Amino acid sequence: MVKLLEDNAAAIEARLGARLEVRAIAVRDPDKGNRVVDVDRALLTTDIDAAIHRPDVEIVCELMGGTTLAKDAVLAAIAAKRHVVTANKALLAEHWGEVFGAAERAGVDVYYEAAVCGGVPIIRVLREGLASDRVESIIGIVNGTSNYILSTMTETRRPFADILGEAQALGYAEADPTLDVGGGDAAHKLAILVNLCFGTTIDVNAIPTDGIDVVDPIDLEYAEKFGYVIKPLVIGREHGTSIEARVHPALVPANWLLADVAGAKNAVYVQSYALGPSMYYGAGAGMLPTAMSVVSDMIEISRNMFARAGNQVARPRPAVPRPMVPVADLRSSYYLRFGVHDQPGVLGQLMTILGAHAVSIAQVVQDGAPGRRDTDQPVWVVVLTHVAREGDVRAALAEIDALPIVRERARVIRIAG
Amino acid sequence: MVKLLEDNAAAIEARLGARLEVRAIAVRDPDKGNRVVDVDRALLTTDIDAAIHRPDVEIVCELMGGTTLAKDAVLAAIAAKRHVVTANKALLAEHWGEVFGAAERAGVDVYYEAAVCGGVPIIRVLREGLASDRVESIIGIVNGTSNYILSTMTETRRPFADILGEAQALGYAEADPTLDVGGGDAAHKLAILVNLCFGTTIDVNAIPTDGIDVVDPIDLEYAEKFGYVIKPLVIGREHGTSIEARVHPALVPANWLLADVAGAKNAVYVQSYALGPSMYYGAGAGMLPTAMSVVSDMIEISRNMFARAGNQVARPRPAVPRPMVPVADLRSSYYLRFGVHDQPGVLGQLMTILGAHAVSIAQVVQDGAPGRRDTDQPVWVVVLTHVAREGDVRAALAEIDALPIVRERARVIRIAG
Repeated sequence: MVKLLEDNAAAIEARLGARLEVRAIAVRDPDKGNRVVDVDRALLTTDIDAAIHRPDVEIVCELMGGTTLAKDAVLAAIAAKRHVVTANKALLAEHWGEVFGAAERAGVDVYYEAAVCGGVPIIRVLREGLASDRVESIIGIVNGTSNYILSTMTETRRPFADILGEAQALGYAEADPTLDVGGGDAAHKLAILVNLCFGTTIDVNAIPTDGIDVVDPIDLEYAEKFGYVIKPLVIGREHGTSIEARVHPALVPANWLLADVAGAKNAVYVQSYALGPSMYYGAGAGMLPTAMSVVSDMIEISRNMFARAGNQVARPRPAVPRPMVPVADLRSSYYLRFGVHDQPGVLGQLMTILGAHAVSIAQVVQDGAPGRRDTDQPVWVVVLTHVAREGDVRAALAEIDALPIVRERARVIRIAG
Repeated sequence: MVKLLEDNAAAIEARLGARLEVRAIAVRDPDKGNRVVDVDRALLTTDIDAAIHRPDVEIVCELMGGTTLAKDAVLAAIAAKRHVVTANKALLAEHWGEVFGAAERAGVDVYYEAAVCGGVPIIRVLREGLASDRVESIIGIVNGTSNYILSTMTETRRPFADILGEAQALGYAEADPTLDVGGGDAAHKLAILVNLCFGTTIDVNAIPTDGIDVVDPIDLEYAEKFGYVIKPLVIGREHGTSIEARVHPALVPANWLLADVAGAKNAVYVQSYALGPSMYYGAGAGMLPTAMSVVSDMIEISRNMFARAGNQVARPRPAVPRPMVPVADLRSSYYLRFGVHDQPGVLGQLMTILGAHAVSIAQVVQDGAPGRRDTDQPVWVVVLTHVAREGDVRAALAEIDALPIVRERARVIRIAG
């Protein structure tokens, strides 16, 4: 952020008619060496509270993350009538009502463009660009690390664990990657998007969330055969009184725009009543893209201050909580991969059980390479279903997994579209 | 617009905390039958000036197009201290300084989201989302009719005139298609984008503009062979003291996201300092997408009025005119298709002349189908060049076109990327 304020100082001043100046930076250890950017040592402090309450501070940026210290700092800033800019998706996803309630009472703004999709201005797009529209559904790729790993697996056909290890060594993935590859980070972002799109809060911990570690290279191969790629998605959809929300890798038709969102890039595909489909694509993480969103928020707050119009941002609509569609009632097509013993009648048994549970089959491929008949490997049977109820699919799979012909539990990946 | 205000009334009221009400609609003929939407006859009037000056009108929407009557109406509305929402790209491209100068003096806002890319909120993205960034270049598909025609030509390999005729019959293209397929409409939009991105005005009539009618089905075939598709592009790029701006169909690498922007859809691909590449995609025309942008602008103006903060929108930066890069100095790779007599030495002559003008060759294909040797058709030689100066390319082509071996003037399409 400090770097961007320096690098783009002239452009920002030309646009805003004023300079944004950093007055204080609260850090754990002011004497820590090798910071990414050289900053004046005099700006650094360990005293968050003193920094917030400086009379020459009007905007507080919270960029530390987490939901304990960060929450205290944000609420303290709001109480001190400072406008707040935050990139903290966990804080907003888990404490939306508390944060915005406090801001409304204090008459200050809380901006959070960097919290979802880094530099992609998806918050502004949904809040202002589509202010007159009704969003029907969103499908997003909102975790860059997961997208990077799946994209690299797709290119190289190497296993998840290898690529993750490399990504960690290169600094693309955290030492503890759980939040990224497990889908927790994406669920936080989805909760914020759902709130903006559908004017409701949902319990982020209740969002059905699968990580990308369920995907093996062989699934990427089969997906390609069928004309799909596998992408780490968040999906939100309005169903009148209830909301569908889920986080999982999914097969995406190869001719969709989302299929081409590769590497660590993010994108959100929005379906709305008046505009129809639209898509927003760009860098979902990284120092400069994130700083870009943070500073753009500061510029907007500053413009409002100059116009003496605090609390300009479209207020979150009254957040009437709406129930989530239960997992068993989700409807989707499914990719199912069965590892079975190679013996006659197997396919018949699988099809019969699926049919009995009202799961209708669109395509089947049986891996019948003769050279593999005597190996110790299971034979793969891959099934693409028509749209089915998830509860029915799960019931069928429970029955199938218990069959003696089965060597490996079925792998299940949902199909988008 | 009336339809959207009705259809989304509840959502808009929930977001704005107020209703937007239509007080008057100025039309040529109030008694015209079969309007798209049923409107109260009492709202219709032929007296624009009276409608503007009604004491209960606070926002004037100009949706008639053109630069004569529309300009008078917009300036009259501004003079009467009404905020203005317009979708009129020609008016803004040609009279930017006059319109925004008047608005600044009157202390009112002029919003124009619908003027570029219909429902895609590209104006807000550039003005607010990327407010802290520096745009380096933009590549856009901003004319839906041209994209529809080229996409359909690509799919069907049928000639331009056929597809245009069909599009006109279906109502996708105007009876006079010149502004769309000739690039004039795209040039207007590019002038607005250049102003927003680079803070400068350019003379829209000086933008080098080629229509899509230079593209034959055979060019689409060759493009595909080389791994490209042909798209109707606008390109803007900052070069310090000067601005590069151009409108023309171009070969786009098939693996670019822009290559997948098909049908009548629009998209703008932005390269900026901090965010890097980002892309914004959606419906560039149509009644509801356009109305969506117009009503979203009205919502933003209304919010500002409630906050008593007129003139909230980021003011256009002082529009210091900057010269455009002359066509001869544009640098690009080129697709060149030569129609020549089938005789030995032809390729050597072409290569020698190109080389003499410092135009370096990346790939050559000679259409040597033996069955065609005796026909009356020219033989095609297709050349992809490395990056070259357009002036050099044009000089080489002038020389080549004058050769006795040439049966048809060279076809030139620039390559993007």
